[in-house]
Amino acid sequence: MSPFIAELPIRGRKINTAEIITVGTELLLGQTLNTNARDLALELSELGISSFYQVVVGDNPERLEKVLRQSLDRADLVITTGGLGPTEDDITMEISAKIAGTDLVCSKQAEGWIREFFAVRGRKPSGNNWKQALLPLKSKILYNSVGTAPGALYQLDHEGTKKYLALLPGPPAEMKQMFQQELKPWLETCADERLYHVYLRTIGLGESSLTDEIADVIHAQNEISIAPYASLGEVMLRLSLMGPKEIATEELEQRFSPVIEQIKSRVGEYIYSEDNKTLPEVVLDLLAERQATVGFAESCTGGLISAELTKIPGASKVFTGGVVSYSNEIKKSLLGVSSEVLRDEGAVSEGCALAMAAGARSLLGVDYAVAITGIAGPEGGSKDKPVGTIWIGLADEEKTTAQHFLIGGDRAQIRKIATLTALDVLRKRLLRIV
Amino acid sequence: MSPFIAELPIRGRKINTAEIITVGTELLLGQTLNTNARDLALELSELGISSFYQVVVGDNPERLEKVLRQSLDRADLVITTGGLGPTEDDITMEISAKIAGTDLVCSKQAEGWIREFFAVRGRKPSGNNWKQALLPLKSKILYNSVGTAPGALYQLDHEGTKKYLALLPGPPAEMKQMFQQELKPWLETCADERLYHVYLRTIGLGESSLTDEIADVIHAQNEISIAPYASLGEVMLRLSLMGPKEIATEELEQRFSPVIEQIKSRVGEYIYSEDNKTLPEVVLDLLAERQATVGFAESCTGGLISAELTKIPGASKVFTGGVVSYSNEIKKSLLGVSSEVLRDEGAVSEGCALAMAAGARSLLGVDYAVAITGIAGPEGGSKDKPVGTIWIGLADEEKTTAQHFLIGGDRAQIRKIATLTALDVLRKRLLRIV
Repeated sequence: MSPFIAELPIRGRKINTAEIITVGTELLLGQTLNTNARDLALELSELGISSFYQVVVGDNPERLEKVLRQSLDRADLVITTGGLGPTEDDITMEISAKIAGTDLVCSKQAEGWIREFFAVRGRKPSGNNWKQALLPLKSKILYNSVGTAPGALYQLDHEGTKKYLALLPGPPAEMKQMFQQELKPWLETCADERLYHVYLRTIGLGESSLTDEIADVIHAQNEISIAPYASLGEVMLRLSLMGPKEIATEELEQRFSPVIEQIKSRVGEYIYSEDNKTLPEVVLDLLAERQATVGFAESCTGGLISAELTKIPGASKVFTGGVVSYSNEIKKSLLGVSSEVLRDEGAVSEGCALAMAAGARSLLGVDYAVAITGIAGPEGGSKDKPVGTIWIGLADEEKTTAQHFLIGGDRAQIRKIATLTALDVLRKRLLRIV
Repeated sequence: MSPFIAELPIRGRKINTAEIITVGTELLLGQTLNTNARDLALELSELGISSFYQVVVGDNPERLEKVLRQSLDRADLVITTGGLGPTEDDITMEISAKIAGTDLVCSKQAEGWIREFFAVRGRKPSGNNWKQALLPLKSKILYNSVGTAPGALYQLDHEGTKKYLALLPGPPAEMKQMFQQELKPWLETCADERLYHVYLRTIGLGESSLTDEIADVIHAQNEISIAPYASLGEVMLRLSLMGPKEIATEELEQRFSPVIEQIKSRVGEYIYSEDNKTLPEVVLDLLAERQATVGFAESCTGGLISAELTKIPGASKVFTGGVVSYSNEIKKSLLGVSSEVLRDEGAVSEGCALAMAAGARSLLGVDYAVAITGIAGPEGGSKDKPVGTIWIGLADEEKTTAQHFLIGGDRAQIRKIATLTALDVLRKRLLRIV
């Protein structure tokens, strides 16, 4: 029989608080962004588990032990990432065993995983890799489907209280899959209730304008909480409901829908997704449903709109291609913008956006053509056309139109918001809102 | 006379260790990435200041006070970001004053800054904003040139030891400028010596291959330390030298150059920058020097190459435009790829890359045309052409060539590395390395 634990005894033990400790000298040196802490924090928050501290510490035995003990003092569950690699620097497993008062022993199961990992890739493990099969007794071993480092989950007696300690690998792809496949299902069994969420993603209104519009709706709630999350060019509203672990979809819909309807009656035109899809995904789905194709003529965004859409696998179903018409020559030669328009109105103008859209539609042979021209800065602005001035043209079978926008921010922000705005113009046209 | 401190007494006091505390509930909820911790950690590391812990804490008075006291126990300098805003939740200034045993009083200077901030923007401050003029006595006030929240820098007597505490705002743009303009110059005066760096940025060799090639050079150093920093598709070598605060440029060059020459003799062809420029910047500079223009024909990268180049202000000097030829129809109609090539070799092939490059050069009327076609995945791979297969074509006045690459990773990684690889092919051609 394996000396490791197959299932931790968790029934009747609710996990209210958790802390994330990310281990790695590269974080202290500023070489990498701490995406692990962000990703885990978001997961914990979705599970309704509170987190009051996050700690970053290097691969140093004394310091790691100190922060582990301190976090165990404060929280029901401590999750670490990093320090499970095959080198001497990787000490998280060892220190955790010391704290748990147990030993590292060779796991036959983990040895098998490592052997298989290399066999599948036609390579051989080196001596170092076998170190990763040394795992703590009195812990549940966690499978790594992406790399060679297994994780571990302990139940410990810490100063007279039952606490949990989970060790996950540092590489984000490995951390994420292990959390999803091993830790999250277990955390869900720890709770009597769970949080249910609905995400309303919006574009076109700032965070404060949006929350002003629905302030009374937010305040009138007691069962459902509504929280805005702003990111560049977008605001997401998260609706959360705490309920029993098993709940019928119809009941859930019944409880959420009055609030959703109220919000939609105020700001419906700004909501582009109710199921947490990104704007490019929503646009792609709308095009696919209509079996329609799209192409772009980009000036100030320089290829970003095409790049955003083609991020999504399967974009080729609806996206034919595009033209990055950065110079006036390309606007003329490929898109057929006339010299007169460029001379009289300039390259950043309604006339140019209209001509670019119409030209792109015919050049690319698509159902919908979106054109964008503007001033991303920092140079090139004037009193009449300040930095952030954008014209977006759209041509389809029925008509060719252009809209004006003024976008704030630096060059990167203007380009990114302009990209989202162009996709939103297309979305509204596909839905025949405009 | 102002009751605030104009200059802190720092001479003779060296700051060896620092800790970063980022304050904000949004970080604990996973709503934002902690770029502030990364950016500050990098700056500290560049200044030769060690950092052993980072902490994230919410806008909670007791918990913030606890972590501030603990960090002051451990480090010479504690830097906080966040919690300086105008709302009731923003408590960092107040808690810091409590720890320093001082009071918040209204700063006339800060009032003036706030008044001016709004006047310049044609807006009026609200009642809340004046809260940001309440600043701690016995501190040096730090100017915010981007927003309304001033920062503060204290010298404190903490448990009998002189410690420093710096409070910076949370919005990254405000944090960065205040660090650069106010804190960094002061930190530099705190040291007798400083670190000098040279950055060699490389592409085309993995981190372990690169360090293997120069392992003996790394070990032979005692004065200069060499550290590799890997990011997606690239590895940077940072050469660091501790020296007196004033040192002649010639002497610095003399001390660095033998090591740089040794490294270049081993891996010179992979080094694209010796002055910390990005690859798109280097390519743009090379084109500008030659007064040459460039255009792209992109398939699998879907516009990313154009988007990367046009990130840089002034790209229009050398970048005319591009075609995103996602479908075979666009490859044929715009770039003149023949039906035979597509039928016999397929869209991901040497023949197609050659035809795309030649077609783009003539269509766009540019000196250099770069074409890329490949399989970004996750679908579309085969035994002969697995996911990650890329062909890059290049056409100039002299010749049209194509190169094959096999890139590992997921769709986003393959697209990003393919983009860098295409720019590197162009760089090598501009330097006539190929």
